[in-house]
Amino acid sequence: MKALIPNSLPRPFGAYSHGVESGGLITTSGQLALAADGAIPEGVQAQAELCFDHIAAILAEAGADFSHVLRFSAFVTRREDMAAYMAVRDARVAHLPVLPASTLMIVSGFTRPEFLVEVEALARLP
Amino acid sequence: MKALIPNSLPRPFGAYSHGVESGGLITTSGQLALAADGAIPEGVQAQAELCFDHIAAILAEAGADFSHVLRFSAFVTRREDMAAYMAVRDARVAHLPVLPASTLMIVSGFTRPEFLVEVEALARLP
Amino acid sequence: MKALIPNSLPRPFGAYSHGVESGGLITTSGQLALAADGAIPEGVQAQAELCFDHIAAILAEAGADFSHVLRFSAFVTRREDMAAYMAVRDARVAHLPVLPASTLMIVSGFTRPEFLVEVEALARLP
Repeated sequence: MKALIPNSLPRPFGAYSHGVESGGLITTSGQLALAADGAIPEGVQAQAELCFDHIAAILAEAGADFSHVLRFSAFVTRREDMAAYMAVRDARVAHLPVLPASTLMIVSGFTRPEFLVEVEALARLP
Repeated sequence: MKALIPNSLPRPFGAYSHGVESGGLITTSGQLALAADGAIPEGVQAQAELCFDHIAAILAEAGADFSHVLRFSAFVTRREDMAAYMAVRDARVAHLPVLPASTLMIVSGFTRPEFLVEVEALARLP
Repeated sequence: MKALIPNSLPRPFGAYSHGVESGGLITTSGQLALAADGAIPEGVQAQAELCFDHIAAILAEAGADFSHVLRFSAFVTRREDMAAYMAVRDARVAHLPVLPASTLMIVSGFTRPEFLVEVEALARLP
């Protein structure tokens, strides 16, 4: 089992890894839009972009990319943010030969009230 | 990696697959009660039945069925809908030699306000 | 596929297993703070401890422990409960050579209003 903790992400603020790889199976922690410098972008579109940037960096630590993602699971706090999230997701994956599965729902919130979206990935290296 | 997109489901309305298989591991997208003709059944029981129908169809595209499901994760929007969801789930799996794991919780909502339940599956072909 | 149903947990109250193992991959059901005698501890700290006890017992049925966990996914109902949950999680895993991934969010509730936290695990035996 290997910890995936890219330098481009803020250090974990607790006892967890940003991602883990074991036998080719990769899981990420739920990613939030916290930049390495502590900034939180405004708006769900910018936040979703940063979440996907984080996931790409985590996957890269295991030699993987979005083409290896089995499922993105995303959680937003407001129905009106869903369309923007889906547009960001679609732009990130539309070119892939096999599109990942996707789960999306509305929840009550995340570790800080400023966060509007959380995204996690399950991936597998062939 | 193989996309699992059965004809009995509505086409994906974004850049995702209804399910994905890689190395025998199968993930589905969160399934909602949208019929192929666009209809949304009323009530959580009918909606849950359709979610499980969708999951069965996705698994079948990979040569799998409910006996290969490791976990069903289900999300409802109202506490009073939990019992009906659990009854549908139980009827679908009670005959299996090994019962899947199950996670169930209440969330705020899904891609349309009419949806009362969302169900996803993680499965594995031996 | 093997059902993981330790005697230290209450019997499942529906058609599900507390955990399942297939080909070394282990999933648990979302664990709630219900003791084998039916008691529900008060407060999120005590509840989180019991959730992790349950997960440890489920993993043990497959010959696994927290060192094999790829990701803990946790759900609380109140923002003010997050710090206590994270403290319990950190105490349980801080000694591990590789820290699991972690997803945490706020949702609306679980199968009974008394439950403040639900935790599930995805693990893999090498």
